[in-house]
Amino acid sequence: MTLIELLKFNDKGLIPAIIQDDKSKEVLTLCYLNREALEKTLAEGCVYVFRRSKNMLMKKGETSGCTQALKSVCIDCEGKSLLFKVDQKIAGCHEGFFTCYFRQVDKDGNVKVLGERVFDPKKVYK
Amino acid sequence: MTLIELLKFNDKGLIPAIIQDDKSKEVLTLCYLNREALEKTLAEGCVYVFRRSKNMLMKKGETSGCTQALKSVCIDCEGKSLLFKVDQKIAGCHEGFFTCYFRQVDKDGNVKVLGERVFDPKKVYK
Repeated sequence: MTLIELLKFNDKGLIPAIIQDDKSKEVLTLCYLNREALEKTLAEGCVYVFRRSKNMLMKKGETSGCTQALKSVCIDCEGKSLLFKVDQKIAGCHEGFFTCYFRQVDKDGNVKVLGERVFDPKKVYK
Repeated sequence: MTLIELLKFNDKGLIPAIIQDDKSKEVLTLCYLNREALEKTLAEGCVYVFRRSKNMLMKKGETSGCTQALKSVCIDCEGKSLLFKVDQKIAGCHEGFFTCYFRQVDKDGNVKVLGERVFDPKKVYK
């Protein structure tokens, strides 16, 4: 049995993967992979995702250089999601922050930005 | 603006939340909340989820005592997912492990169980 056979993809053929930085243990982002994205991720050892908004396969960091080298893969108790531990190059978020979860919010919607921008997205995505 | 107004719930009215143990930084599970579950989570300071398989609202740990006290809430750059840091009581997985991601898997599907069972699910869920 392969890893893919242990998984339950959803009704859109996708499975969510939590991406965690292996060193700092910071949670970086939540991605969605189809079978092809997962196969390429496992074969090449870096994260590919299925971008729902563009309906296409993309290597994470292809434009920005912010690639994610795969360190380990865990599956949850029900086979419905994945946890990838990665070595994050530069930063994980297209907004230029290390993690996509850079906004801490209280129940009234007050937003506190955590951390500093690592890069300026206007200079990286032209 | 409240936290809920900053979020984009999906076409089923749900938003995914990654649950991370605040102390150990271990990723525990991926849950789905509807608006009501999120309102109760914020009001009571412990995690409620919408159980898709049972189509109902449930307090995490209500049966087992493995509750999750909310420490902080972050939202991702697009408002499509949440990161909850929690103080996890006992263990986060209904299989008795601290995290739902207790199975590390290689591409051939070889499974290595990480960590030890904290409780016996047969004794907890009767």
